[in-house]
Amino acid sequence: MPVNLSAPTSTSLLPIAGIEIGIASAGIKTVGKQDLVLIKIAEASATAAVYTKNAFCAAPVTLAKQHQQQTSAQYLLINSGNANAGTGERGMQAAQACCQAVAEATNSEANTVLPFSTGVIGQQLPVDKMVQAIPQAAQNLSSDNWFDAAHAIMTTDTIAKAISKQIELDGKTVTVTGMAKGSGMIRPDMATMLSYIATDAAIDQSVLDMMLQQAVEQSFNRITVDGDTSTNDACVLMATGHAGNQLIIDINDASAQQLYTLIAQISQQLAHAIVRDGEGATKFIAIEVEQGLDSEECRKVAYTIAHSPLVKTALFASDPNWGRILAAVGRSGISEFDLSKVAIYLDDVCIVKNGEPAITYTEEQGQQVMDQEEITIRVELGRGQAQDTVWTCDFSYDYVKINAEYRT
Amino acid sequence: MPVNLSAPTSTSLLPIAGIEIGIASAGIKTVGKQDLVLIKIAEASATAAVYTKNAFCAAPVTLAKQHQQQTSAQYLLINSGNANAGTGERGMQAAQACCQAVAEATNSEANTVLPFSTGVIGQQLPVDKMVQAIPQAAQNLSSDNWFDAAHAIMTTDTIAKAISKQIELDGKTVTVTGMAKGSGMIRPDMATMLSYIATDAAIDQSVLDMMLQQAVEQSFNRITVDGDTSTNDACVLMATGHAGNQLIIDINDASAQQLYTLIAQISQQLAHAIVRDGEGATKFIAIEVEQGLDSEECRKVAYTIAHSPLVKTALFASDPNWGRILAAVGRSGISEFDLSKVAIYLDDVCIVKNGEPAITYTEEQGQQVMDQEEITIRVELGRGQAQDTVWTCDFSYDYVKINAEYRT
Repeated sequence: MPVNLSAPTSTSLLPIAGIEIGIASAGIKTVGKQDLVLIKIAEASATAAVYTKNAFCAAPVTLAKQHQQQTSAQYLLINSGNANAGTGERGMQAAQACCQAVAEATNSEANTVLPFSTGVIGQQLPVDKMVQAIPQAAQNLSSDNWFDAAHAIMTTDTIAKAISKQIELDGKTVTVTGMAKGSGMIRPDMATMLSYIATDAAIDQSVLDMMLQQAVEQSFNRITVDGDTSTNDACVLMATGHAGNQLIIDINDASAQQLYTLIAQISQQLAHAIVRDGEGATKFIAIEVEQGLDSEECRKVAYTIAHSPLVKTALFASDPNWGRILAAVGRSGISEFDLSKVAIYLDDVCIVKNGEPAITYTEEQGQQVMDQEEITIRVELGRGQAQDTVWTCDFSYDYVKINAEYRT
Repeated sequence: MPVNLSAPTSTSLLPIAGIEIGIASAGIKTVGKQDLVLIKIAEASATAAVYTKNAFCAAPVTLAKQHQQQTSAQYLLINSGNANAGTGERGMQAAQACCQAVAEATNSEANTVLPFSTGVIGQQLPVDKMVQAIPQAAQNLSSDNWFDAAHAIMTTDTIAKAISKQIELDGKTVTVTGMAKGSGMIRPDMATMLSYIATDAAIDQSVLDMMLQQAVEQSFNRITVDGDTSTNDACVLMATGHAGNQLIIDINDASAQQLYTLIAQISQQLAHAIVRDGEGATKFIAIEVEQGLDSEECRKVAYTIAHSPLVKTALFASDPNWGRILAAVGRSGISEFDLSKVAIYLDDVCIVKNGEPAITYTEEQGQQVMDQEEITIRVELGRGQAQDTVWTCDFSYDYVKINAEYRT
């Protein structure tokens, strides 16, 4: 059960002029499941993408990067059920064959197709099934398929993740719609598992690139479920320009900032949705680290807490065993760390002040916060002005169950 | 159930001339349980100790370090059930009061006592109970109490961990006996939870310090259960000189090397015992990383694999889902990493060669290795001559259960 997260409805997701989506069932893992998505991007659109930093990145990630350097993207091809990662040269040939199949079905060039895969690592992609299903997806391209697409890209996700928002720019209505998938192997180092966000606004390529980088830094690059950076992370932002607004060429313009705020909100909501639907999650945790020398050391402390199995199991048990938080802060590797300036809070309840247990703290106060489904752990380092926030979930029996039984 | 680990017997643990041990029940967590150990070290002995690098180290750790700088240790006082960590100034006063109680019961000085605590973090030490039990421990000091002591220091351990070995030096029989405790919050960064090793050999202080540092580097500092470095780690090595061998003053002497080998073996066996009895462990895993530029990058790769919840749950499920190992290697942060030189093995089964899935690999081969209780994951980086090894266990339902219910 995801933590305080409702599924999108088909009417809540607004189409984006210039974006068409086709869906098919290739039967990669489960016969009959819709598992293949083809996104058509109108000509003259701008497309930005960021990818995993995992050195063992998947074949489709390598190929998508190559294609993006050669020409502008016209199609995104996404499959769930198989990550085509750790598959070597044969995996690369499989990804190429899929792009070629899209090119033939749509009368375009193979290098205008960006491929994305998600699912089991280390098994060869069933190319024949993909190639057979691709023409079907090309035939049902429609601007209304966001809802089905958000479902088709799911793997261990228990709920679809997608959202739409609108604003006025230059008297024109501009729409942004985004979707994401992800639940386990989540510690994005560039972008999360898979996320696709599109707008009909007109945005210059360099501004679009900047917007995506910034939005990802404050959303997908600040979440973790289990600390495991995926081989297949990718996040794509598309801008078709069909809304008719004036082309955005400076990120500091008022209209650019308005639109960026919208994109950043959608990125953050999608990133949070991944944590809320994290494998086995029963709680949604924000870890805010403040008063650091720089944001890097704030993140170091935040991720040490977020990855501690002891903190995560205490959160699952609603046990205010704050000694585990203190131990995690202490081992996070901050240099010349003056503990006498450290304070730690559970929501507004102070548990450590000046490096000492707070005299005002009672176990009842701690218990009250820990019983909640949403908890903020706040750490003040007392060293400077920097701050950063990381979002994570707890660690339950179901995490072990899901991951022990994943391939069975 | 610990993995391939038998409990010591009372006759298997050999006394060390010059070391006496007293035991008592302070009833810190459970009424009637023996939870207090007093070790008396004969005069003119040498004692070396290493402690946790966790910045939030416990009050007894801070006090033990201070006392060690002031004079040579005559007593070690150890309690289980309460870590006296995260307890601030009051915790420091509690540790001092306990040392004072030992001084009074034994007619010695408080600063000759090194205090050690292990158990729940963040709760005040019940000083009265300790002070009441200390004279009792002082009264039953005996050289035969290693077996009871190994049990008294346990917390979530399911089995006692202790071992004895002997060699001949200068025609004299020299004995080494060691004990350790630890099961969770295990990722020692200097030494493990608690370990005490004693010998009746005569060893110069500076050589003893070196021996301990080296032995710890290849044992306690190479294990991890959950990545959580404890606030209370400590490892102590005592040498009484009662065996009558010639004083060892050069670590490179043949006799020094013989003795060091013994101490290193005991350290490694005790460290392995902690992993074999790791919380919820069902498997014992060695992670060997070879052909690195330096041993630091080998450890980086090894610990990334060892801490991956996805790898650990796959090991628990005996699932040869090696894609998770590959993903962990890929995210370990090695700079300028040439994947085409990487090979990965499960025991002798090659799963990745030249960065590609090995063509010889079959799922049956992988399954056969994963079904074992002891597994070696070996990674060749193809960059240099360095190598390092880390030992860990898997991640089971019971880990979550033990840590969700720890304080209830």
